[in-house]
Amino acid sequence: MDEGGVTEEEHEAMPPASRAIYFGSFLVTPQVFHTTAHSFALVNLKPLLPGHVLICPKRHIPRFASLTPIETQDLFLTVQRVQRTLTRLYAATAFNVAIQDGEAAGQTVPHVHAHVIPRREGDMDERGGGDKLYEMLEGEEGDVAASLREAGKAGEAAKLEGSERGLRPDEGNRPARGEEEMRKEAEWLREEMGRDAEQ
Amino acid sequence: MDEGGVTEEEHEAMPPASRAIYFGSFLVTPQVFHTTAHSFALVNLKPLLPGHVLICPKRHIPRFASLTPIETQDLFLTVQRVQRTLTRLYAATAFNVAIQDGEAAGQTVPHVHAHVIPRREGDMDERGGGDKLYEMLEGEEGDVAASLREAGKAGEAAKLEGSERGLRPDEGNRPARGEEEMRKEAEWLREEMGRDAEQ
Repeated sequence: MDEGGVTEEEHEAMPPASRAIYFGSFLVTPQVFHTTAHSFALVNLKPLLPGHVLICPKRHIPRFASLTPIETQDLFLTVQRVQRTLTRLYAATAFNVAIQDGEAAGQTVPHVHAHVIPRREGDMDERGGGDKLYEMLEGEEGDVAASLREAGKAGEAAKLEGSERGLRPDEGNRPARGEEEMRKEAEWLREEMGRDAEQ
Repeated sequence: MDEGGVTEEEHEAMPPASRAIYFGSFLVTPQVFHTTAHSFALVNLKPLLPGHVLICPKRHIPRFASLTPIETQDLFLTVQRVQRTLTRLYAATAFNVAIQDGEAAGQTVPHVHAHVIPRREGDMDERGGGDKLYEMLEGEEGDVAASLREAGKAGEAAKLEGSERGLRPDEGNRPARGEEEMRKEAEWLREEMGRDAEQ
């Protein structure tokens, strides 16, 4: 299945600098802050908590069982590598690592992705407790596809759509972010990942 | 940190047949249905949905980032291997794969474990929708440590404790299961995993 607009072969033939990165059918190049041989990491349009990122295999496959042993290892070593930097930047003491593997499990973009969410004691207290995080992940707040579709109309329009959807006021600070804001966050994370790599 | 009652060295020195398997400080040998070089899979005392199992590294470490590359790969190849058999046995069309990595993320047993939960369209409809599954995972229903502590007093006693806790009636069919029931399920899964391996 070709989700990315270019075939695997066409993609491999491109010079590295022009290689656009697609998450499912979405062009996410400016959101990507780390790439490895087989994986990439991107910032989230609508993080459920600060530092909530996604780790994906480069290959466009919807289901986890289709990953080769090498891809599987690379994906989770990337999770560990990203955790290291997020721990430092967000003072995280824990993480939720979650894969919605298939539509019936809440997957909205048919491209394997692991949610990595930094946690701290009490971080969800104002939003209904830790249980609520998972509810949000499974619910529309965590719908990665919907928020990516919204990306073009970020800012005021997204805020409006938020209120139309009946989101509670405390979620008003989670509109889809603008491309510029995400590009800056991705650049910052890329730099900070580089620092940890040097040590 | 020694969670298992025996040291790594003592464990390695035992003949294979007498190697007790500990999940954190809990002896779970009868619940284990699959072992690999670095991982084991066990049935759940209180599955959130039928077929809900846990995959753990053999090494007793609390945090995901402490897994070596080999252990990391082995853990998730085991997840894939178990998914294959669960897909067949439970007609699963999807899976939730979730790691609560640290206490602030809801981890109750300080030994890395990946929840693998088979999903089907509409499987949570009678229990409040898909969102509810995550809530249960984070809440007391998904508290693996608490349910393991209860294991000794399964059956009527567990049912009583359930009602004391104020669980809703639809959760009355989820008391901690007896050791004999889990041993049978583990044996069945072990056999079925063997069938898939032969193909």
